[in-house]
Amino acid sequence: MINFEFCSPTKFVFGRGAEVKVGALVKQFGGTKALVHFGGGSVKRTGVYDKVIAALWDAGVAFVELGGVQPNPREALVREGIALCRKEKVDFILAVGGGSVIDSAKAIAFGATYDGDFADHAFGKDTKVMTPVPSALPIGTVLTIAAAGSEGSCNSIISLGEEKLKRTITGDRLRPRFSILNPEFTFTLPPYQTACGLADIFAHVVERYFTPTGRVTVTDELCEAVMRTVVAESAAVMANPEDYEARANIMWAGTVAHNNVCGVGRAQDWSSHGIEHELSALYDCAHGAGLAVVMPAWMKYVKDAGLERFARFAERVWGVEKGDDLAAMADEGIARYTAWLKSIGLPTTFAELGAKGEDIPKLAANLHLNGKSLGAFRPLTETDVREILKLAL
Amino acid sequence: MINFEFCSPTKFVFGRGAEVKVGALVKQFGGTKALVHFGGGSVKRTGVYDKVIAALWDAGVAFVELGGVQPNPREALVREGIALCRKEKVDFILAVGGGSVIDSAKAIAFGATYDGDFADHAFGKDTKVMTPVPSALPIGTVLTIAAAGSEGSCNSIISLGEEKLKRTITGDRLRPRFSILNPEFTFTLPPYQTACGLADIFAHVVERYFTPTGRVTVTDELCEAVMRTVVAESAAVMANPEDYEARANIMWAGTVAHNNVCGVGRAQDWSSHGIEHELSALYDCAHGAGLAVVMPAWMKYVKDAGLERFARFAERVWGVEKGDDLAAMADEGIARYTAWLKSIGLPTTFAELGAKGEDIPKLAANLHLNGKSLGAFRPLTETDVREILKLAL
Repeated sequence: MINFEFCSPTKFVFGRGAEVKVGALVKQFGGTKALVHFGGGSVKRTGVYDKVIAALWDAGVAFVELGGVQPNPREALVREGIALCRKEKVDFILAVGGGSVIDSAKAIAFGATYDGDFADHAFGKDTKVMTPVPSALPIGTVLTIAAAGSEGSCNSIISLGEEKLKRTITGDRLRPRFSILNPEFTFTLPPYQTACGLADIFAHVVERYFTPTGRVTVTDELCEAVMRTVVAESAAVMANPEDYEARANIMWAGTVAHNNVCGVGRAQDWSSHGIEHELSALYDCAHGAGLAVVMPAWMKYVKDAGLERFARFAERVWGVEKGDDLAAMADEGIARYTAWLKSIGLPTTFAELGAKGEDIPKLAANLHLNGKSLGAFRPLTETDVREILKLAL
Repeated sequence: MINFEFCSPTKFVFGRGAEVKVGALVKQFGGTKALVHFGGGSVKRTGVYDKVIAALWDAGVAFVELGGVQPNPREALVREGIALCRKEKVDFILAVGGGSVIDSAKAIAFGATYDGDFADHAFGKDTKVMTPVPSALPIGTVLTIAAAGSEGSCNSIISLGEEKLKRTITGDRLRPRFSILNPEFTFTLPPYQTACGLADIFAHVVERYFTPTGRVTVTDELCEAVMRTVVAESAAVMANPEDYEARANIMWAGTVAHNNVCGVGRAQDWSSHGIEHELSALYDCAHGAGLAVVMPAWMKYVKDAGLERFARFAERVWGVEKGDDLAAMADEGIARYTAWLKSIGLPTTFAELGAKGEDIPKLAANLHLNGKSLGAFRPLTETDVREILKLAL
């Protein structure tokens, strides 16, 4: 087990009706005037937005509003939010939505307190090494999609510039002070978005589970626990979108999958996420759908770097019978993972996703590896990335 | 899944050499003058104490010292610590030791900021309902025993008065700001203390796992993950006390077992802890040893209230083959749990613990149930408690 630090200070308020506490929570964490940040019309259609606004009124919290966050959130709206916060002297950012809204809110929270350009802290935009953000306004979230884990994480991913390069801003100051998780708010998600969320949650654990380093029994077990939960509850939620228990288990699994309790004590991989971000940047596909295409291909390409780990994944997560032929076990595990993705209605090929084979060199180049490698389980070159994408055709 | 709040804000700094950061961490969390609180001679003999003191000097943190915490920490030393903090204008409490030292430090941290008597907040001392403490000095810990989970929890258990009644003080303000976990610091633990720690960690999960309420797939899975880890690593650590990986996995499992990520979303039981506290209060036995005696007896007594849960425990934690006879599975699971406790050298009967059958009425009466029931899986009367203790003879 390698040395680590772990700090997940977010206060999670979970369950039916939890949103009534939002005003009191904003005040508890020092907010007097909030920016309420949200996406398109769905939070208004479902009534979630009205409930949040009513709770803010009840608590006497002043606020301004900024909607319009798109999936794969953009730099331009972040800049608009930063300007609004400065003009209106906002001291708290409240995100009402899913991962894109929360990530946009985090970037605004940082940018509003930063003298320079917020994008300087996004790795790849300039020559600086990614460093934790030095400051941010306090952030709260009301989650409406179980997927990204951004409600408990320290990261924000924004599409920068006309190239729409997805880049990360990071730092413990971006961790939400509170997150309100009411599983009922996810009842109205279309099946495809629910499935994308399942794939994203599962992938957050896979990125941490496939590690080149040693004996971290407890973290391995926790990873498998979350992966099995996601798979076990997926059939119920796809069959009945209003199954509260399924929604609740998936929602909390989504948080646990990404607050890093499943990642401590070892190297993590994250190359599938890196590769996928270029897909969703270019095609504006859902992140979870992109992961469903990239991750099985990544597995096929890298499995020989650690067959024992893939065999364990097959046995513990997918119930593949233990045997002496680790390669066969690994293949069966990957096959069952792929079949599960298909069963919940996700694409697992370039063609199904609407991606184009001829873009592969560009997708790989957009990672800007510049001779560095991607990932840890098997460090990847740009050539490796192209080969993985070919496996996903 | 029932509604819950979860907030585990402690910054955990884990691994070899982590203690060098202690001075910087005290300063990061606002400390300028610390009370260094510790137990007997072991932290001095092992050199841990000197390392901590050197790190405080290096960071320029002023401090005063108070040693002498005994297992099952006492009210008198807490009062001494409170007086010392007031006299010396201490603004940070640093515990160097195991659960008893940390619990004593938490009580001091509360009492030093409280105008009234700290013991008023301990349930059972007066007629008040237990309420979260309203204030406390910030607390940091350097952990030397993997067991109690107090390094991440919001509770403190103190033996009050001449009767040595163990009572709980609680509240999120008692959660440590940081905890330093260096597994090497546990290398020198005697086998018996190591085993007591294993039993305690395991029991913290059992108290949460056996719940009367519904489908909490993710928390069930997390509980089983931690229990399996403890069992899997126990043989290695008992065979070689300096097995770093075993010590590290057990240490982190101990934290995860008790920061409540294994407990959210449902009722928890805690009756075995309640019963055991009276044993260790009366006989000054190790808490983990007392649990090894009480918990299997509790299981035998309550199993019929939820055979499915006991059968699942048997299958998932102890590898008992699934069958139609849930009662047989349950019995086999309890038998394997008991055998494991014996295998690591723990007592599982009153006689082995040095407890006396004639004290059973007194032990049950000391819980002061006053007609209320204990626990949630199967609520227990004072009569039930006596029957459980008889099963442990």
